[in-house]
Amino acid sequence: EQKFNPVDHPHRRYNPLTGQYILVSPHRAKRPWQGADETPEKAEDKAYDSECFLCPTNTRVSGDENPDYADTYVFNNDHAALTPETPDAPESDNPLFRCESARGLSRVICFSPDHSKTLPELPVGTIRKVIDTWNEQIEELGQEYVWVQAFENKGSAMGCSQPHPHGQIWANSFLPNEIARKDENLRAYYQEQGSNLLVDYAKAEMADGSRTVVETEHWIAVVPYWAAWPFETMLMPKTHVRRMNELTAEQRDDLAMAIKKLTSRYDNLFKCSFPYSMGWHYAPFFKDGDTSTEHWQLHALFYPPLLRSATVRKFMVGYEMLAESQRDLTAEQAADKLRALSDVHYRESQQ
Amino acid sequence: EQKFNPVDHPHRRYNPLTGQYILVSPHRAKRPWQGADETPEKAEDKAYDSECFLCPTNTRVSGDENPDYADTYVFNNDHAALTPETPDAPESDNPLFRCESARGLSRVICFSPDHSKTLPELPVGTIRKVIDTWNEQIEELGQEYVWVQAFENKGSAMGCSQPHPHGQIWANSFLPNEIARKDENLRAYYQEQGSNLLVDYAKAEMADGSRTVVETEHWIAVVPYWAAWPFETMLMPKTHVRRMNELTAEQRDDLAMAIKKLTSRYDNLFKCSFPYSMGWHYAPFFKDGDTSTEHWQLHALFYPPLLRSATVRKFMVGYEMLAESQRDLTAEQAADKLRALSDVHYRESQQ
Ligand SMILES: O=P(O)(O)O[C@H]1O[C@H](CO)[C@@H](O)[C@H](O)[C@H]1O
Ligand SMILES: O=P(O)(O)O[C@H]1O[C@H](CO)[C@@H](O)[C@H](O)[C@H]1O
Repeated sequence: EQKFNPVDHPHRRYNPLTGQYILVSPHRAKRPWQGADETPEKAEDKAYDSECFLCPTNTRVSGDENPDYADTYVFNNDHAALTPETPDAPESDNPLFRCESARGLSRVICFSPDHSKTLPELPVGTIRKVIDTWNEQIEELGQEYVWVQAFENKGSAMGCSQPHPHGQIWANSFLPNEIARKDENLRAYYQEQGSNLLVDYAKAEMADGSRTVVETEHWIAVVPYWAAWPFETMLMPKTHVRRMNELTAEQRDDLAMAIKKLTSRYDNLFKCSFPYSMGWHYAPFFKDGDTSTEHWQLHALFYPPLLRSATVRKFMVGYEMLAESQRDLTAEQAADKLRALSDVHYRESQQ
Repeated sequence: EQKFNPVDHPHRRYNPLTGQYILVSPHRAKRPWQGADETPEKAEDKAYDSECFLCPTNTRVSGDENPDYADTYVFNNDHAALTPETPDAPESDNPLFRCESARGLSRVICFSPDHSKTLPELPVGTIRKVIDTWNEQIEELGQEYVWVQAFENKGSAMGCSQPHPHGQIWANSFLPNEIARKDENLRAYYQEQGSNLLVDYAKAEMADGSRTVVETEHWIAVVPYWAAWPFETMLMPKTHVRRMNELTAEQRDDLAMAIKKLTSRYDNLFKCSFPYSMGWHYAPFFKDGDTSTEHWQLHALFYPPLLRSATVRKFMVGYEMLAESQRDLTAEQAADKLRALSDVHYRESQQ
């Protein structure tokens, strides 16, 4: 009889943060590819683009003019998905037609005035300013809203309409699905084990090493054991930190370095501007009920779509939408590939 | 004070099948679009393509030769994500590293020998044969496996490597995430309300009409109240049917007609071969524990990615991946648009 081997045999891994499984089919990476090709993301070469609505001094669709900003610049999204003054929706007594009104707002953060550089190519000092801006925005909006989602969509493969380096902040009067589910799972683990799930997890990954992609003094980035996207990573502090505002200056500088290294490895993988959606999860700003947050841990999630090359992505379609997420290489194989690369960006090392 | 109005005000709708919410931002459809364009799906014009590995008499990568088939043709996928003989995985005692072995198999169903026609352009009699083939495959594989996912990925926007009309069947030794979650929600409703959730829902939608896209004698297709994708639809029988094998011959003929009408409206929306992933959910083949299935109802789900035109899709990225699915038009607005179209395919009406 054959012995089970995670590199050859299909298996499911459990994601303790979502309570869901991932189907891993490592033998499948061998199949030929005849599907759609993405257009590879090309790097921008102009530091200023007069057509870009995020570049300093340009005028946006709203008619507002961007200041001649020097580092980060934040403004209210001219096409926000949420409005701060939504009237309450009437209650429905039919459990099949439940609706509630949603309040919030949405802001854009320009990471730098330089149109041509995405996170991995920005200096560590600039990334540090992005971190400080994330933190300020989150703390400010958390006064009013229970959830503040900071994220970046990078690359046209991720629906990003804008090459200028920027992210978004959406503040919500409600706890969105993914946060509500994570809160439940983190809380249950804390009650059962008496410890913090993600603090325990970071320790286990530091000890193991097989899924580690970047490790700095205060931070570790791994391809999580239960990753769904081929080169998905999770970036965690090594100690218990509920929100960014608890980070020391040293931890923030080190985070800037960790982000630069991680995203440089991404760009180096297929020698392209690597598309992804990334964002931060952390203790919500609970306003009522059980407001405890000991079970929470700050962490960033990176979801990149590419699978085989700069032009071949993983499609989460059919089986994935209807049944279960599925991946074609193990988390350990993905981490191996990312770890084998330099953490210096290929365009910087050519200079 | 303003009164809440679902066409102007952001709100969340509850999906009773998944227990999750959808953020609806109807005012957002007005924003300008500067993102990626898809390549529009072009219709194939050759009924036979010597390069296609699904056409009759051609040889596949595996070396196998396709027979000169006349209607549907089923074969084992040469690159299956699952294998029937996976050895058992060792148990882990760490709740953060849980893994289980997965068994199954995967088959391809060619819908027709005609390379150039997708479902909406196939004759009703051919679609009826596809329905019978789905049913046979599901019943056969259900003898061995608890779950059998029948689905179709259509179009390169949905990762489909092959224009020849075909679908897939993946059989699983486990209940995948989406089915496990649906089973829980359907069962809880049945216990609380003493009736079947989707039978109740179909009745409510027939009475209301505002989300109906296609209605035939035995079937109704609606944009569900909680739809996530812009033109998502759900196709349901009007009576209680747990699995396809319970359908009468008349209900099957009528289903073929309903599928032809629904997919023709899809193609007519942007005058293109409309991409989607579609698939069937129905009572699992429970092997042990509580094997009751009264709470289940057969239904098909269509998840199409297009939003504004044949080349502009909805991206479920950043906020959606990290927080909550979000849509830019209400379910009722989407249903209105689909209902306003002819149910005769634009290429057939031109003949
Ligand atoms: O049908 P294919 O080309 O093998 O594969 C396609 O459908 C599968 C099932 O939904 C997905 O896992 C793949 O990502 C997608 O490319
Ligand atoms: O940033 P944009 O272009 O407004 O929009 C992009 O990100 C949003 C938040 O993830 C998504 O809802 C959109 O589908 C996507 O195109």
